[in-house]
Amino acid sequence: MKIPEILVIESVQKAGSLVSILQVIADDGLVVEHLQSLRREQGKTVWEITLEMDEETDRSLFQKIDALPNARFLGKSDRVFDRHLGGKIETRSRVRISSLQILRDIYTPGVARVCLAIQDDPEKARLYTNIHKTVAVVTNGTAILGLGDIGPVAGMPVMEGKAALFAELAGLSAVPILLDSKDPQKIVDTIEAIAQSFGAIQLEDIKAPECFEIEQQLKKRLDIPVLHDDQHGTAVVALAALINAAKRVGKTLPGAVIGQIGLGAAGIGIVSLLKAQGSCEVLGTDLKADARQRLEKLGGKAVAIEELMARADFVIATSGVKNLIKPEWVRDGQVILALSNPDPEIEPTIALEQGAAFAADGKGINNVLGFPGLFKGALAARARSFTREMLLVAAHTLAELAGPDDLVPDALDIDVHDKVAEAVAELVRGSR
Amino acid sequence: MKIPEILVIESVQKAGSLVSILQVIADDGLVVEHLQSLRREQGKTVWEITLEMDEETDRSLFQKIDALPNARFLGKSDRVFDRHLGGKIETRSRVRISSLQILRDIYTPGVARVCLAIQDDPEKARLYTNIHKTVAVVTNGTAILGLGDIGPVAGMPVMEGKAALFAELAGLSAVPILLDSKDPQKIVDTIEAIAQSFGAIQLEDIKAPECFEIEQQLKKRLDIPVLHDDQHGTAVVALAALINAAKRVGKTLPGAVIGQIGLGAAGIGIVSLLKAQGSCEVLGTDLKADARQRLEKLGGKAVAIEELMARADFVIATSGVKNLIKPEWVRDGQVILALSNPDPEIEPTIALEQGAAFAADGKGINNVLGFPGLFKGALAARARSFTREMLLVAAHTLAELAGPDDLVPDALDIDVHDKVAEAVAELVRGSR
Repeated sequence: MKIPEILVIESVQKAGSLVSILQVIADDGLVVEHLQSLRREQGKTVWEITLEMDEETDRSLFQKIDALPNARFLGKSDRVFDRHLGGKIETRSRVRISSLQILRDIYTPGVARVCLAIQDDPEKARLYTNIHKTVAVVTNGTAILGLGDIGPVAGMPVMEGKAALFAELAGLSAVPILLDSKDPQKIVDTIEAIAQSFGAIQLEDIKAPECFEIEQQLKKRLDIPVLHDDQHGTAVVALAALINAAKRVGKTLPGAVIGQIGLGAAGIGIVSLLKAQGSCEVLGTDLKADARQRLEKLGGKAVAIEELMARADFVIATSGVKNLIKPEWVRDGQVILALSNPDPEIEPTIALEQGAAFAADGKGINNVLGFPGLFKGALAARARSFTREMLLVAAHTLAELAGPDDLVPDALDIDVHDKVAEAVAELVRGSR
Repeated sequence: MKIPEILVIESVQKAGSLVSILQVIADDGLVVEHLQSLRREQGKTVWEITLEMDEETDRSLFQKIDALPNARFLGKSDRVFDRHLGGKIETRSRVRISSLQILRDIYTPGVARVCLAIQDDPEKARLYTNIHKTVAVVTNGTAILGLGDIGPVAGMPVMEGKAALFAELAGLSAVPILLDSKDPQKIVDTIEAIAQSFGAIQLEDIKAPECFEIEQQLKKRLDIPVLHDDQHGTAVVALAALINAAKRVGKTLPGAVIGQIGLGAAGIGIVSLLKAQGSCEVLGTDLKADARQRLEKLGGKAVAIEELMARADFVIATSGVKNLIKPEWVRDGQVILALSNPDPEIEPTIALEQGAAFAADGKGINNVLGFPGLFKGALAARARSFTREMLLVAAHTLAELAGPDDLVPDALDIDVHDKVAEAVAELVRGSR
């Protein structure tokens, strides 16, 4: 898989120095993801160049750059690691404890009044504690990013990333909970035992098929919203993209044949939401028999990938397998969303060359667009669970908020998350 | 028990107005805990007066104040509740996510580099996550403050208070975990299952005797520090006070007879630390047989309270029972620390009248002096558990930091917590 490498390169301030560096990179078939100057001094500039490099990429590139007459390879940047130093989140006091009186109000003896008020009327916990603005981000580390089962501690930077995004984009407190178990029953029991601490539960990077059972059981046992983000967060954003892609090519989803390649957590989540969305025929494909059975339970039809490509008007791929879709399978007028990250099932440019009406990959179609607003809305409206209707309204809101040339809106636009939250909260309030 | 009432009273700006209000309060036998003017306008002042009132106190006081010629009872203040509005803590991002590049560094795809680095070398989690600065504050709600078994959600304001203090006094992230169980085995299993998420565990307001078993089992099973604050945090601060009280009366603890009244979590913690401290004889008393057995296992001797009072040079009381110590039991030259909050076993003034050489109550001898520095030091030095030596060094450091007229130092002085942390960390590092 592609993991960014960040190179630090010094160039002499002469016309053409930077070009010659970028040419060497281009000759190696590598794409520049980001480029910035770190400093400029005494006739030299130090550049930080972020590249998309496969693990297998030949690192001799570094020597080739160093061999250029006006460049020097200084090494690799620690930028990503620096941004992680000390961890990405922290718990803070919302009160400055600057006097004895404040201490006595927020701690003993004053706090006793608040405890007794909550004991008397548990609803007051909403007002006087942070519980109802707090989301547990729970993982057992079995399916971290595209990295697989690397364990919960190695997955912590992702959980802290989620928590940082919850804080920045939705004003929610998120708490990573790392579970030391792969047993669905034990995971459910543990989450149930600590659930009172939180307003909602986000299941994260737990592998299929265990994730399905865990989510279903928790939804039954808990009266707070539970969402497995890999299934439903991804589905919400994929559906938003699909709605806009359909508009773009002048088609509609109801009545269309939709093909889902890959029936893991994300794939099954997408099929489930598509089925809730309207009357379309869903074809699906996966190597695993239990995955195909899950598809058929949802009303989809398991077919071979060739048949899927031959029949589907819209193709969504979340298989995690690079270049899985052969160019010759692509049909004229097809819409193809090859969403696996970091490497899509087919490069959009190739799909378009083969006659696809529209093609996109998963770069911007990321679940960071979905979960902040979904949880903010659910918590604000005191939802007891996430329903398919809530996911659908989030998807349609996201689709509407996308610019005319985009499939989805800008994930860093706080307004987008606020609008998703409002739409979700309005739906919950209206349906009570 | 005494829970503060905060009255809002308007007085005419005339000499003697305030005196007459305070006289009515004094006549009712009530003590003013805090007094401030909220505003002053058009010849009138609005006062906020915090009183120590028992639940049984006659509320007709309010009418008596209202009946004064120059005063008007406006109502009760919401100051304590206002300070709790929205909860007292929040999780924040330590990174401002203001650009796509930052998003890609701290979330996908950049975060993958950090995940892989931690998978490769788990020690790196110390650097690049918040785990090792995070304390789980865990309760099942069975012994909240002096309020008893009011349940974990009603206890949340206390847990958030602890977390706020951890953040403000020690720069640590604390996360309240509310457990839905009274079964020690289930509690231990649950904490073990989530322990990887944290650098240390603080058990909080879990009732005796379950708290002993829970702590012991967790200490065995986990390789991160676990501390039941009600036992050991209280013991550390009580020992610091005892050391200074002994100095004050020109005695020493080794060789002395020490009496512990009340053998619950705090009492047993104190006896355990006294036994570690040096060769003293410890007498103890409690109504419960299992509590007395625990005392004898620690090398103490169970006696009747009358015998304890008759023989002990130093008496510490943590029984939670107001006025338990009869004035006639007090002997000449005795040191009495009656620490139950909010009502001591004997008022210090009464004990002194009866001939005690020194007497104090638990107003300032609060565990907020202990836990921030203890955890900060343990986490900084990567301790795998809390040892009695760590508790002792914390107690002696606190004793040394107290002013010449105080038993313990100022809890809001950050420097105090830093020095405790340094002493604890130094000990851990030296003993490895």
